[in-house]
Amino acid sequence: MTEPLLPHIHSPADLRRLPPEQYERLAQEIRGALVQTVTRNGGHLASNLGVVELTMALHLCFDSPNDALVWDVSHQSYPHKLLTGRYEQFAAIRQSHGLSGFTSPAESEHDFFYAGHASTSISSALGLAEAKALRGDPHFTIAILGDGALTGGLAYEALNNAGRSRANLIVVLNDNEMSISRNVGALSHYLSRVRSRPEYRRTKRRVERALRKIPLIGGELAVGAAAIKRLFKRLLTNTTLFEDLGLDYIGPVDGHDLKQLCAALESAKLTPRPALVHVRTIKGKGLERAEAAPDQYHGVAQYEDAAEPTAPGTCCTDAFSEELCALAAIDPRICAVTAAMSLGTGLDAFRKRFPERFFDVGIAEAHAVTFAAGLAKQGMRPVVAVYATFLQRAFDQLLHDAALQGLPLVLAVDRSGFVGLDGATHHGLYDVAMCAGIPGATVYSPATCGELRGALRQAMRAPGLTVIRYPRGTAIKGEQTPPLLQSADAFELYGDPAAKIAVVTYGRLFFAACKAAAPLKICKLKRVLPLDPAAAEAVLHCDRVCFFEEGMRSGGVGERFALALLERRFAGEFRLAAVEGFPRHAPAEELLAEYGLDTAGIERLCRE
Amino acid sequence: MTEPLLPHIHSPADLRRLPPEQYERLAQEIRGALVQTVTRNGGHLASNLGVVELTMALHLCFDSPNDALVWDVSHQSYPHKLLTGRYEQFAAIRQSHGLSGFTSPAESEHDFFYAGHASTSISSALGLAEAKALRGDPHFTIAILGDGALTGGLAYEALNNAGRSRANLIVVLNDNEMSISRNVGALSHYLSRVRSRPEYRRTKRRVERALRKIPLIGGELAVGAAAIKRLFKRLLTNTTLFEDLGLDYIGPVDGHDLKQLCAALESAKLTPRPALVHVRTIKGKGLERAEAAPDQYHGVAQYEDAAEPTAPGTCCTDAFSEELCALAAIDPRICAVTAAMSLGTGLDAFRKRFPERFFDVGIAEAHAVTFAAGLAKQGMRPVVAVYATFLQRAFDQLLHDAALQGLPLVLAVDRSGFVGLDGATHHGLYDVAMCAGIPGATVYSPATCGELRGALRQAMRAPGLTVIRYPRGTAIKGEQTPPLLQSADAFELYGDPAAKIAVVTYGRLFFAACKAAAPLKICKLKRVLPLDPAAAEAVLHCDRVCFFEEGMRSGGVGERFALALLERRFAGEFRLAAVEGFPRHAPAEELLAEYGLDTAGIERLCRE
Repeated sequence: MTEPLLPHIHSPADLRRLPPEQYERLAQEIRGALVQTVTRNGGHLASNLGVVELTMALHLCFDSPNDALVWDVSHQSYPHKLLTGRYEQFAAIRQSHGLSGFTSPAESEHDFFYAGHASTSISSALGLAEAKALRGDPHFTIAILGDGALTGGLAYEALNNAGRSRANLIVVLNDNEMSISRNVGALSHYLSRVRSRPEYRRTKRRVERALRKIPLIGGELAVGAAAIKRLFKRLLTNTTLFEDLGLDYIGPVDGHDLKQLCAALESAKLTPRPALVHVRTIKGKGLERAEAAPDQYHGVAQYEDAAEPTAPGTCCTDAFSEELCALAAIDPRICAVTAAMSLGTGLDAFRKRFPERFFDVGIAEAHAVTFAAGLAKQGMRPVVAVYATFLQRAFDQLLHDAALQGLPLVLAVDRSGFVGLDGATHHGLYDVAMCAGIPGATVYSPATCGELRGALRQAMRAPGLTVIRYPRGTAIKGEQTPPLLQSADAFELYGDPAAKIAVVTYGRLFFAACKAAAPLKICKLKRVLPLDPAAAEAVLHCDRVCFFEEGMRSGGVGERFALALLERRFAGEFRLAAVEGFPRHAPAEELLAEYGLDTAGIERLCRE
Repeated sequence: MTEPLLPHIHSPADLRRLPPEQYERLAQEIRGALVQTVTRNGGHLASNLGVVELTMALHLCFDSPNDALVWDVSHQSYPHKLLTGRYEQFAAIRQSHGLSGFTSPAESEHDFFYAGHASTSISSALGLAEAKALRGDPHFTIAILGDGALTGGLAYEALNNAGRSRANLIVVLNDNEMSISRNVGALSHYLSRVRSRPEYRRTKRRVERALRKIPLIGGELAVGAAAIKRLFKRLLTNTTLFEDLGLDYIGPVDGHDLKQLCAALESAKLTPRPALVHVRTIKGKGLERAEAAPDQYHGVAQYEDAAEPTAPGTCCTDAFSEELCALAAIDPRICAVTAAMSLGTGLDAFRKRFPERFFDVGIAEAHAVTFAAGLAKQGMRPVVAVYATFLQRAFDQLLHDAALQGLPLVLAVDRSGFVGLDGATHHGLYDVAMCAGIPGATVYSPATCGELRGALRQAMRAPGLTVIRYPRGTAIKGEQTPPLLQSADAFELYGDPAAKIAVVTYGRLFFAACKAAAPLKICKLKRVLPLDPAAAEAVLHCDRVCFFEEGMRSGGVGERFALALLERRFAGEFRLAAVEGFPRHAPAEELLAEYGLDTAGIERLCRE
């Protein structure tokens, strides 16, 4: 039994000092650490197993952090963390106060950006590269992104910009063969065709050798020979879409062959233009049960999800999924649109039952919304299901392409509120403030599955843009509530009719308020936008109104409620507890407590 | 002198009834109407002159509105308006209560979307086309977009999605040769190469004829022949980037030759997949002074801008431009980034003085922000100059790629507030509410050029995300102000120290308040985010506080101010005048008056 290597890798320099014959052992140890930790802590497994050799090659060929590695989405950055001095902390990844499951500049100088949204890496890497060029720094910047991220428009905007740049930028396209069936769109189809080609550098070199043999006449190629040269060149160099966009294309390279990888990366360093290195990797590579039973292989992706309480089968997502299918069964106009999140958003059931009315548009939230507006214009009733954090990518589309058109469009916004261990890049805390200024937008934030279903039914009949937002997992339960005092379309009032303290809130915080010991009036907003002024009137005669919001304080509902009270000359005290800053990764309960949004916090503010 | 044709074209059917020999005369009449009206009313001239024949061909080959024409950005939709029953109203285009300068479903069933932001057409058209397919409607949907719009990521997301679709979608790429020098990026370079190719359909047909002569052996091509076939096919079919994305490519076609255009559109109807028709047009085609003096041709673009009071040389944009150059002269870290708006945002001066630090990334606002964050991460101090309405496209990039990273990034946001005759799609009214929920964002809304310069200097030293927003044109003037009572970083208090009525506002409305006759305290917010609570304290003892906001009421600063007052137990009356809904196109002064945001409105609300 030899001593393990990984604990001795404190930085990429230690990796570079290893004798090459130990590389394979190190790769095995990295895979071991990944499987061991992720099966315990949850997180992304298959994607990290797929990039073990690629990460090693990058750290062998480049000098991080002088050369900058920029990981797209960065859920595949675990091997990078293990090789950049975070081995000892790795056991606590994705735990409160532990390592982030994504890159984090606060953790390491080897991480350049907090990243959790797809398709950003080429843009930020190009920025780094152009700045290096301006500062006379000859080091490289390398963006590493998956084929899925390449379906996002931001990646394309950046490629278009990079294709005319002369900065030291290298784009590594990590093309997971396993995701062919799940990825959608023409680009994915194109890549699968390119993948089957022989490796490109070699072909090119052979052609160039052949072309050099064509005789020159006075330093110039004979006309006929020039034509032949052009003919062969165009034929054999197999121009790719990436070359059309001005990048030097290298690949496809076997992403599990370190030698091939290093050769490709080294030749990418020599190109006069930004290069794109096309790497084929296998998601989940090296996980025994995947290798022994390829048919269970897809389970690895499921398994990743199952490591967190986010899989379908939990309450809100299920309620949405069931209700949507029930509505679609009787209304043939109902369509469902997802941006590569069919499973997570609960649209799989819809996809199976109504495949012709189901549209997965790729990781392209902006397009999802504008496309859905087009469906609506032609008489359909589209529902776009999306995570709250990713909806941020479609702000202008919600405003300019949906709301302004006055078209009926429903957004089912999952993972709203604190999302827990995914952390800062993924919290669904910004959607309500984001929608506040969109004219005509209606936003529901149901507190129970029943409310969610009701909101969806109402939304399908509404003439304009409706957003229904609900948290991940099982947080919403039909728990014990105080007596109902008043019920309106947009809100409900519960509690003690004589109470002089009122709590106003929405979504799952309602149940935290119900558990508070003090005698309270509790006003639960079901529709948070537009605000029903009657909700303010319902608590106007209380001595104190405390508003609790699992969302941003600035731009949130609490401010709007304060205005409604002030316009009605409310004479009591008003307190607002909401979220400020970018919350860290931690279980949702822990964060709710930290921001005073749990039962204890509610009691505290009401008593204060 | 023959009678004009255009007044008799009440619908596309009238066009289709014309004898073909009259087409050219009609085209001339359309050009005449364009030049006559646009030189008087302002608006887009060159882009409309460029699509006269294309628009005629579209209405000859398709049956609008059964076939749906979707115009990207839609500033090139004037000929379409002239041919779809709006000839008589055309003289009042872009005037208050007149025709919109963009497509408008409220005007005509031939207009499908309000459009003013680039790159949306393929998405919305694909939505229409898929809905038609679901409903068994065999009609076509045609997206018409310029080469500039093709640099936006949304267009690419939609192309990627369309490339696997079987819906009746046709994409018409209107490639303006004149914009080569102004467009940027690899795609533009690629298109200029494709443009010079011979027309593609003919070539393809000839190759196919040749290939059919290769003998078959038992129904199969001989192996050698198959290889030759592949060779020639790949060589001669000249695969384009669009074909790689799964579309059938037809072109390039002379966009001023009706016969060629119609032939291309007719063959696009026959393709089994969505087709892309590549049309070469000349911006400004047919304008005499352009044909007589090609070197003045670029002036046409200027001329378009000059038709509105938006050209450089006006106050805010100039102040920004000058101050930025002055700062950049002493700080080599300062970079400027624009999304194809170098002229309008006043960055042209910077571009000329500091070309190596100037970046035009194409019509790609999302990438502009993320790219700038990359520059900032590597030690530069980037300033992204953008119109308020287009900043909407970068919400997630502001949040996830800039603010979350804690990087110093400055947004210079021009055309904030009512923009006037461009109308609904272009008003800069949503940016403040949009930024409210972005943690750590600082937003300045200066009321004078001096304040703008000061804010920019302060922003360049700030550690995080700073947005400086200012209106178009010359609205900000250093006019007479009442006595200054209090001055703080974030606000200033003016007026009568004994006044019991306070006006709180920001930006150019301050001067409207200064002109009010009543004795007032006037609190001018310079920094609107985060709100300085001291501003609320400064008016806390007034009997009435009236807040005026040239921006959305919901999510705006007024609500935040109400909260600050309420938390301080303000006992007086509070009134908020701000914008609701989507304002129409009209001169800014007219809209300000309509929303009670002019001096009369301020006096009215204060007296009420």
